[in-house]
Amino acid sequence: MEYRRVKDQQDIEGLSGKSLSSANAAATAGGLSSAGGAKGKSSWKLKSVVTLALTLLTSSQAILIVWSKRAGKYEYSVTTANFSVEALKCLLSLAALFRTWNRHGVTDDNRLTTSFDEVSVYPIPAVLYMVKNLLQYYIFTYVDAPAYQILKNLNIISTGVLYRIILKKKLSEIQWAAFVLLCAGCTTAQLNPSSDRVLQTPIQGWMMAIVMALLSGFAGVYTEAIIKKRPSRNINVQNFWLYIFGVIFNIVAICVQDYDEVMNKGFFHGYSFITVLMILNHALSGIAVSMVMKYADNIVKVYSTSVAMLLTAVVSVFLFSFHLSLAFFLGSTVVSVSVYLHSVGKLQPQK
Amino acid sequence: MEYRRVKDQQDIEGLSGKSLSSANAAATAGGLSSAGGAKGKSSWKLKSVVTLALTLLTSSQAILIVWSKRAGKYEYSVTTANFSVEALKCLLSLAALFRTWNRHGVTDDNRLTTSFDEVSVYPIPAVLYMVKNLLQYYIFTYVDAPAYQILKNLNIISTGVLYRIILKKKLSEIQWAAFVLLCAGCTTAQLNPSSDRVLQTPIQGWMMAIVMALLSGFAGVYTEAIIKKRPSRNINVQNFWLYIFGVIFNIVAICVQDYDEVMNKGFFHGYSFITVLMILNHALSGIAVSMVMKYADNIVKVYSTSVAMLLTAVVSVFLFSFHLSLAFFLGSTVVSVSVYLHSVGKLQPQK
Repeated sequence: MEYRRVKDQQDIEGLSGKSLSSANAAATAGGLSSAGGAKGKSSWKLKSVVTLALTLLTSSQAILIVWSKRAGKYEYSVTTANFSVEALKCLLSLAALFRTWNRHGVTDDNRLTTSFDEVSVYPIPAVLYMVKNLLQYYIFTYVDAPAYQILKNLNIISTGVLYRIILKKKLSEIQWAAFVLLCAGCTTAQLNPSSDRVLQTPIQGWMMAIVMALLSGFAGVYTEAIIKKRPSRNINVQNFWLYIFGVIFNIVAICVQDYDEVMNKGFFHGYSFITVLMILNHALSGIAVSMVMKYADNIVKVYSTSVAMLLTAVVSVFLFSFHLSLAFFLGSTVVSVSVYLHSVGKLQPQK
Repeated sequence: MEYRRVKDQQDIEGLSGKSLSSANAAATAGGLSSAGGAKGKSSWKLKSVVTLALTLLTSSQAILIVWSKRAGKYEYSVTTANFSVEALKCLLSLAALFRTWNRHGVTDDNRLTTSFDEVSVYPIPAVLYMVKNLLQYYIFTYVDAPAYQILKNLNIISTGVLYRIILKKKLSEIQWAAFVLLCAGCTTAQLNPSSDRVLQTPIQGWMMAIVMALLSGFAGVYTEAIIKKRPSRNINVQNFWLYIFGVIFNIVAICVQDYDEVMNKGFFHGYSFITVLMILNHALSGIAVSMVMKYADNIVKVYSTSVAMLLTAVVSVFLFSFHLSLAFFLGSTVVSVSVYLHSVGKLQPQK
């Protein structure tokens, strides 16, 4: 079972380029044909593949971070790594696009050129995430790290509420119940003896945590709105325009923060094999998130990353002799029931 | 809200004699009339009243125990208190019966005399509970007290499974999911820094905990089967025969365990006002359990006592400056969602 999961993951990571272009082909096919049955089946398959990819990539992300920490402290500058991730995402999107152009020719849906009207909203998610990341430095004045881990689960609720309000999509009553359970289950799984300190969080800490959760939820829901606004538009074009702003913002960050270091030691100073793996993983996870936004939604994304958190802990038992608590088992049970309820509680079969 | 709950409780406790006989009257009426609508409504009302009574009595039980401990150690012998509880239950059942006889006359359904065929199964639940209580002394060889509190939640699962197997009643898939959540939620609410020790429980401890959960679940389900086998039989007659065996078993226990003490110091030595209140509370809770078995079922009983556990903790915050943990809030959330799912997940409206 453990072996199988690792093998599946290798397959998906190994074939990510292929998966990108086949996703694209399926999307094009979906856009052209309106045969409900075939489209429904192919869309369901696509949704499952991107969700599985996101889950596995996210869970291996945390493991790579632990590995890189065991290998020693970070020697590279974080801003150049962030830039590399964004640039790699752009390159992968372009590579997938070239393949599509070769196979199907350039159409209105897959041409890279765009209107100001289409592209003007693309920087907004990047700006929201930047504001959230800035707030992150200030919240630690009021909240310690374990309490922050607990408060981050407010993202789940904020995503659900904003998904309902902004995208106007409905969840059934059972799915709402499942969503509350997902939040409670994830928090329970992360409980440790110092978690109770979160109850002593001052009001400023709560306010900032709520604002951060709203920013993060809003960025996610907004990205989904942008991507879904043009359903027939090629996802790789949409990704390119999303990521190019990430590239630009990170160039600014490098200039402000690490200009001297990059000039003196070089851009890729301190990069190790693990660093490269982490960058690759982050880039693929980012693309998987976009894919989930295009072919599924924010709710699926939240479930996927929550299950990934539990998978990470289980894998860590084998890799790092990580200790699983009773709270982890209880939380995992609640999350599993939540996933089950979310699927049986559907309002109607989704396209 | 706090005041209101206390007030409701006083009403129910104050009127318990009345509530017994009105329950009885409603049951008789239900037995005589077969008008579905009226019966359904009166049965639903009865079910709600007995469930609320059980919840409030169970939650005040734990509070009385804490109070009696604060007042000093137990000065009375536990066997005489147990005898008093069983005897009081018999007397209350008889009192309710007398009232019924006066109002409606003696019928086949409310006469006290019985056949061997009817009465022969009544000692079985008492024997099962006795075996379980004996095992309780031995399990502490393998499991410490906090771990035992955690393991006791296995009762929830065993009751659900035996309810399905023995009474052949069906729960919907969502209700099963809710039942798993109830168990996980109750356990989460009771988590404390030493709970993780339960994971080190040796296999003998697990086996005994499972056997005890099965015995306790079986006794509950068996009692329901006995009481429901004759739906038109007066509940107070059924209670009388259930409790009279409790009286007999406790006389044996007094003779074996506390004969000298009772002979030297007297039967009621060391009884305080709190002791009397506790005996009254236990007797009324016992009657409420029987009522729930008659008019509702074991599943309702499990929900009722689980919610009572949470109520106790909340009331303890005000009474004893009890400290509520984050785990308690998370567990309570999961239990609340479970109660909600149990009610929306009904297979069909119950009679």
